Amino acid sequence: MSISAAYKMILDNAVIALHKRTFFAQYPEHPSPKIYGETADKDGREKFQELLNKPFDELNQQREHKWTGSEESPYLQEPLGIEYPVMEAATLIERATEAFQGWRKASPEDRAGVLIDSLERVKNRFFEIAYATMHTTGQGYMMAFQASGPHAADRALEAIAAGFEELKRFPDAVLWDKPMGKYNLKLNKTWRAVPKGIGLVIGCSTFPTWNSVPGIYASLITGNPVIVKPHAGAVLPIAIFVSEITNAMKNAGYSVDTCQLAVDTIDAPITKELAENAAIKVIDYTGNSEFGNYIESLSGKSVFTEKTGVNSVIIDSAEDIDKVAQNLAFSVALYSGQMCTAPQNLLISRDGIKTPSGMVSFEEFAQKFVDNINGLVDNPKAGPFVLGAIQNPKTCARTESVEKLDGKVWLSSRTIENPMFKNARIMTPVVLEVEGKDEAIYAKELFGPVALLIKTRDTYDSVSIAQRMAMIHGAISCGAYTTDGDMKEYIADQMALAATPVSFNLTGGIYLNQHAGFSDFHVTGGNPAGNASFTNPEFVIKRFTWVGTRELVV
Amino acid sequence: MSISAAYKMILDNAVIALHKRTFFAQYPEHPSPKIYGETADKDGREKFQELLNKPFDELNQQREHKWTGSEESPYLQEPLGIEYPVMEAATLIERATEAFQGWRKASPEDRAGVLIDSLERVKNRFFEIAYATMHTTGQGYMMAFQASGPHAADRALEAIAAGFEELKRFPDAVLWDKPMGKYNLKLNKTWRAVPKGIGLVIGCSTFPTWNSVPGIYASLITGNPVIVKPHAGAVLPIAIFVSEITNAMKNAGYSVDTCQLAVDTIDAPITKELAENAAIKVIDYTGNSEFGNYIESLSGKSVFTEKTGVNSVIIDSAEDIDKVAQNLAFSVALYSGQMCTAPQNLLISRDGIKTPSGMVSFEEFAQKFVDNINGLVDNPKAGPFVLGAIQNPKTCARTESVEKLDGKVWLSSRTIENPMFKNARIMTPVVLEVEGKDEAIYAKELFGPVALLIKTRDTYDSVSIAQRMAMIHGAISCGAYTTDGDMKEYIADQMALAATPVSFNLTGGIYLNQHAGFSDFHVTGGNPAGNASFTNPEFVIKRFTWVGTRELVV
Repeated sequence: MSISAAYKMILDNAVIALHKRTFFAQYPEHPSPKIYGETADKDGREKFQELLNKPFDELNQQREHKWTGSEESPYLQEPLGIEYPVMEAATLIERATEAFQGWRKASPEDRAGVLIDSLERVKNRFFEIAYATMHTTGQGYMMAFQASGPHAADRALEAIAAGFEELKRFPDAVLWDKPMGKYNLKLNKTWRAVPKGIGLVIGCSTFPTWNSVPGIYASLITGNPVIVKPHAGAVLPIAIFVSEITNAMKNAGYSVDTCQLAVDTIDAPITKELAENAAIKVIDYTGNSEFGNYIESLSGKSVFTEKTGVNSVIIDSAEDIDKVAQNLAFSVALYSGQMCTAPQNLLISRDGIKTPSGMVSFEEFAQKFVDNINGLVDNPKAGPFVLGAIQNPKTCARTESVEKLDGKVWLSSRTIENPMFKNARIMTPVVLEVEGKDEAIYAKELFGPVALLIKTRDTYDSVSIAQRMAMIHGAISCGAYTTDGDMKEYIADQMALAATPVSFNLTGGIYLNQHAGFSDFHVTGGNPAGNASFTNPEFVIKRFTWVGTRELVV
Repeated sequence: MSISAAYKMILDNAVIALHKRTFFAQYPEHPSPKIYGETADKDGREKFQELLNKPFDELNQQREHKWTGSEESPYLQEPLGIEYPVMEAATLIERATEAFQGWRKASPEDRAGVLIDSLERVKNRFFEIAYATMHTTGQGYMMAFQASGPHAADRALEAIAAGFEELKRFPDAVLWDKPMGKYNLKLNKTWRAVPKGIGLVIGCSTFPTWNSVPGIYASLITGNPVIVKPHAGAVLPIAIFVSEITNAMKNAGYSVDTCQLAVDTIDAPITKELAENAAIKVIDYTGNSEFGNYIESLSGKSVFTEKTGVNSVIIDSAEDIDKVAQNLAFSVALYSGQMCTAPQNLLISRDGIKTPSGMVSFEEFAQKFVDNINGLVDNPKAGPFVLGAIQNPKTCARTESVEKLDGKVWLSSRTIENPMFKNARIMTPVVLEVEGKDEAIYAKELFGPVALLIKTRDTYDSVSIAQRMAMIHGAISCGAYTTDGDMKEYIADQMALAATPVSFNLTGGIYLNQHAGFSDFHVTGGNPAGNASFTNPEFVIKRFTWVGTRELVV
């Protein structure tokens, strides 16, 4: 099979978009009936419900030795009852090794065709994936739809496009013709992009598709078979993705074992056994820094990580401080701070914030910020949907512990009612004021709905703290508010040295938490928050090797 | 300053050449008086002689705390008597850190202009560098001229071009304009390529410029200052390069400390102290695998290595077996096997080699091979110039020990006279026959003029051994002779899986040892012989980080 004209057009547009970095989306982000069909939402919800309390049998996988499942809905606080086939690590490796021989010989065009086909199949399941994501991660409906469906598919397409471009970067064959004076020396040369070997993609519990599909598709487009090891608490969304990849593979005549799902349980994990296997040559990882550092330390593998970081917001000056407080309140509340891009440390000079109507004091801003959070979470049409639910009970404990830290509690965390899910695990943001000198408190990730208002000496001190946090502990995002052009460049330059992207002066309906496919590099790879970036050229190049041949022309 | 039109044309041509991968050379490889001037050779030799027995004071470096030098000519077996400024690691790091602030802000065009200017300055010193290379590495005159002069400069230009292209890959700024239904959400976005930090380039004793300048120029073009740590036995060639880089920096108004030479002695090495310093973010290394593996194990750094390997030649069938024997004899003798690309293991079926005039037995080929080596080394117009001299006395001991291994000695190593250098350290190749099962003998690099003729079960066995050696011990080159199209593809495919480039059916004046700039990727990065490749995109991409900013358009 070769790529169809329709898929080739999708691919070509994606490659162009990669370079233009202006707005581009292949998959519409709005769950609109006009786009996805009048019954799409209802159908998706019903399909999700049909999957509950039974084995998930869509994976085209054989030879499982048992079935397991431990997912639990943060909205219902009860098990989903879905079981997945379990295979031993050796079986997974053996089957991937066999599948490798066929997949590595497929042309870049053929691979792109199969992979885009899988995304088109997934598109028909966006709503089902949305409900699966809600009931594993605790995300609100809208985020669950967007992040796990169209945004993930766009990130996957971006990886396909980036890989395709690199695979086509050098000629397949040339005549090398060197003048030697009396004669020309001629060699026929060829180059092949040789895939490194089996890829392992290790998922996280909060963004089970968005964070995993870039690695899956980047490894696949470059010819590597993939074993997908989801977090035991968030399997279903990525299981649906994997099932559609195997369907596309089967349809095109490739082995379904080119992409396998490897489910384990928290009690009997197989991640290390897989990661340390010599046949695993590429690893993509999303999760905590401790395990991520272990993954990075493995030798003989190309490793791509997204770990944790400490994200800062530098507030120097603003046109409209109320809009700033409103925007940041939303950023902190969105999915209860369970995004890797969520801001944690809000850095404000003890002298306050410059505005056209005079200085706004640290305390005034703190009050505005708290008022906005309360207004948001107490709005029954917004609060439950923005906050979502807490994925992991440990996050609740951490959030509660923040109030016991040495600082002024501006806002306590509490719970609110979600009218649709009375049992939902919900915590509203806690807001604590700390001093710039109290680095022991803020120099770590406090994952969850936690905002620290840090009182600094001045904006330069704020920048210095934000930079140091990023350099030492990593950072994935940074917000900054300033009306001063020189200060803006200073912040951009200093944070660039810490390899942290900066969002300036965001107000209204755009938040620093959001990174757009085909435009924003997500994680830069240049600080301890991770060594990889969606999707820069490095993200695909390190998955294969350029190897040449030469032959004398006689 | 900005790049001149002349230099911009050099750069543009180099970028095009990178992609076309056909023959391209900016710097003529022949030391012809017509190209370089009637007196260029004589002038260069005299300038080299003037440098002997005194301090090398061209480095624009200050604050040295002592002077040292331990180079010795393999042709004269006596010290060169040149001393270089020695600085403490902390001083080097401190000065590089200061220089970084200016260099990182230079535009890609400005950096390329300065770096091409340095190559044009070096071009005037190719002959001086040639003599410096002869009398540190033991290379013959022609190789010393080509490898350390024009070929090195071309590899440097290749790295500049590759870096420049990556730095220009994404737009500096775009308007991101997202339709939201009733309004458009607009962000101004910018991207900057942020250099990682100080680069350290660790050189080797046999190719002091060719193996070091790709890393030096790749780090510099991407905005990183560089500390060059040459092998204590081969400083002068790269010292001349570094001095011209500092001259070009000075001329353009950049700090001379952007590229510093760090000379140490074998007794008081500073490589580890530099390499482990947290400020060193990029390391390029050429040398033995043991130290290379240590360098690769350092965390928090982008590391590029070329280590050692076991290079094979698979001899299946040939049109003209005499030409094969002649070609391989030259390959083995060239610079006494002290090239990282030199073949070591010649794999031949016990059934012999298929030719149009029937099978040539293993023994017949062995005799032809030995006869060709003798014919070459005993030819006074060729032998001394092809062999050159042995850089390190340990190589002599290793070569002598080969005869004591368990196998038939087809040819003993001996010495010949170099009429120009009576004291030259010379050893001719040793040829040993071993069985395919005797892996303990051939499964390691025997650096120096050593050829093993390995008797295998058949060509498939030969391929299997060559692949295994490459996968386990690394390989930088592979030769193959076959007249069978299916076998050719089989060899190319199997060696590609071991990330080893294959040269097919080379006879006449082209040898598998030679890798051409702008066409052959030198070292693939995909097997244990090294993790880097001259110059693939990865070689420059990992030296900087893409960092974006976004600002709301109001």
